Amino acid sequence: MAPDTRQARVAVVGSGSWGTTVASITARNTSTVLWARRAEIAEEIERDHLNSAYLGDEQLDPRLRATSSMEEAVSQADVLVMAVPSHGFRDVLAAPHVRPWIPIVSLTKGLELDTRLRMTEVIDEVLPGHPTGVLAGPNLAQEVLTGYAAAAVIAMPDAHVARALQDIFRRTLFRVYASTDVLGVEIAGALKNVFAISAGMAAGLGTGDNTRALVISRSLAEMTRLGTAMGGKRHTFAGLAGMGDLLATCISPLSRNRRVGEELARGRTIEEIIADMNMVAEGIKTSRVVMELAERHGVEMPIAREVYAVVNEGRTPEEAYRGLFRTRPTTELAAN
Amino acid sequence: MAPDTRQARVAVVGSGSWGTTVASITARNTSTVLWARRAEIAEEIERDHLNSAYLGDEQLDPRLRATSSMEEAVSQADVLVMAVPSHGFRDVLAAPHVRPWIPIVSLTKGLELDTRLRMTEVIDEVLPGHPTGVLAGPNLAQEVLTGYAAAAVIAMPDAHVARALQDIFRRTLFRVYASTDVLGVEIAGALKNVFAISAGMAAGLGTGDNTRALVISRSLAEMTRLGTAMGGKRHTFAGLAGMGDLLATCISPLSRNRRVGEELARGRTIEEIIADMNMVAEGIKTSRVVMELAERHGVEMPIAREVYAVVNEGRTPEEAYRGLFRTRPTTELAAN
Repeated sequence: MAPDTRQARVAVVGSGSWGTTVASITARNTSTVLWARRAEIAEEIERDHLNSAYLGDEQLDPRLRATSSMEEAVSQADVLVMAVPSHGFRDVLAAPHVRPWIPIVSLTKGLELDTRLRMTEVIDEVLPGHPTGVLAGPNLAQEVLTGYAAAAVIAMPDAHVARALQDIFRRTLFRVYASTDVLGVEIAGALKNVFAISAGMAAGLGTGDNTRALVISRSLAEMTRLGTAMGGKRHTFAGLAGMGDLLATCISPLSRNRRVGEELARGRTIEEIIADMNMVAEGIKTSRVVMELAERHGVEMPIAREVYAVVNEGRTPEEAYRGLFRTRPTTELAAN
Repeated sequence: MAPDTRQARVAVVGSGSWGTTVASITARNTSTVLWARRAEIAEEIERDHLNSAYLGDEQLDPRLRATSSMEEAVSQADVLVMAVPSHGFRDVLAAPHVRPWIPIVSLTKGLELDTRLRMTEVIDEVLPGHPTGVLAGPNLAQEVLTGYAAAAVIAMPDAHVARALQDIFRRTLFRVYASTDVLGVEIAGALKNVFAISAGMAAGLGTGDNTRALVISRSLAEMTRLGTAMGGKRHTFAGLAGMGDLLATCISPLSRNRRVGEELARGRTIEEIIADMNMVAEGIKTSRVVMELAERHGVEMPIAREVYAVVNEGRTPEEAYRGLFRTRPTTELAAN
């Protein structure tokens, strides 16, 4: 570990399952405070090293501190980690107390709905002048905390900063790779939820493993096409934050977005599905943003378009599926 | 369909499950003869439109002809499709009767064991002067024949030939994309079997969906590293013949290579596993060739190396798994 990062104090803002998991990892590597909006969550972490509301009886690192005071959490931080949902991101970030120049790392996947901004762009609007980046990959919180092997990418505009942060986030079974492609990693994280809905629809229609591989492969091609048109690097989409996260989201029965697709394929309406879920699946909201981005960048996205039509325009999954096969394939780099 | 390919007569050599499936597809598009070594298979196809030895009661296209006479099968062919296992490929190909200049398309995944040659290189040695290429992708024969959606890549050195052949192989639910990256498609098809063993080992050790996504993502990174060092195109490995086929092989319970990994993780020896299987899993043989290629091209392949050590040197899957996590990750493009 580099001497300059050994003493870095980390503040993680947001005590959901993934924020808490990451905080428990960094607490093992360096001094870490977790901010929880609800005082009882902070107290439980301090007292019992548990966050039972989000992580059941998974034991957290006993060195992890927690507080519901934003000032206490962030005023001494050398690294700020943002782990709040995209819709609350801007407001939480507006809290003062953050020291100048410190790196800010987003764990949040998704785009701000009204502005279509990535989370690092929101950070740059609210707290300009900080090096801002993102940590992302195929990361189911529970599995990482349980100690199953997993991996992620830390992307910062400055490779030196990314490398220094690697040591704060990693452990033996949580491999963290460094990158400078912040935009690519963020766009991949936002788009994958839309494609998880399409994978769920395919599964719900009772297709085979070939078809699953086909839908995921062509989804990756669409994601790469839009992401590179926006300035992301091709290898990011072929890596852990792109293909890796897409894959985990498409194969895991725990994925909310995949489940939305499966339920749609069973004939339920999007309103019924949303009413049944405690949390909204990000892919539903993102499908609209993706279509706007695709148009703005002149990129064809047939799979995302069909997801959009099913979610927003009442098209049936069967119609969507048939629609995808009406076109003639050309090359893999083209849209069809 | 282009006028020049409308009348093309296809000969498919090899009546295993995939050769028969492809022949049944092309028979729908154009005149097709399947060569079967065993006369009774040819007779059953002619009489009942079935190949019960390989495809149970799946109905084949009634227009498909079959014969056990090589001369009858290939002497009139305008396109030769080779669907015999890699170990018998050269001998079968040596049969005369092939008209000059006609395109030869390999369906065979794997490398020739003694020479380390790709199948199109073998074709070029035995029958020089033909345009030679490959059709590959995530294709489980039974699923394609049943009519589940699937897709493949046809790669030929000449893009015009690839585009003309697209029309011979495609149907609505079997999407065929054109490519000129013959080497990339062939190398991907050979390597994926080695990585399917590693995915099977991870599954057998009882890891989570994150870990599956991690193993598959990093396997793809290794495959891409070797493949591009050998001259393949990066986008091929991110596409259907690379990531798509790797994915299908790693998630399908039908994959022999994946099953080898799972059995190894359960503590069985490679000798016991081979003795139990009717057919040898390609990945076992290929693991040695891959290590030689990696050395020749100066490419680090930590996952393939661990598979090799487990298959050939008696290392346990647990040791292999731990070995992979001892290194420090750097960037996704590097080996670790």
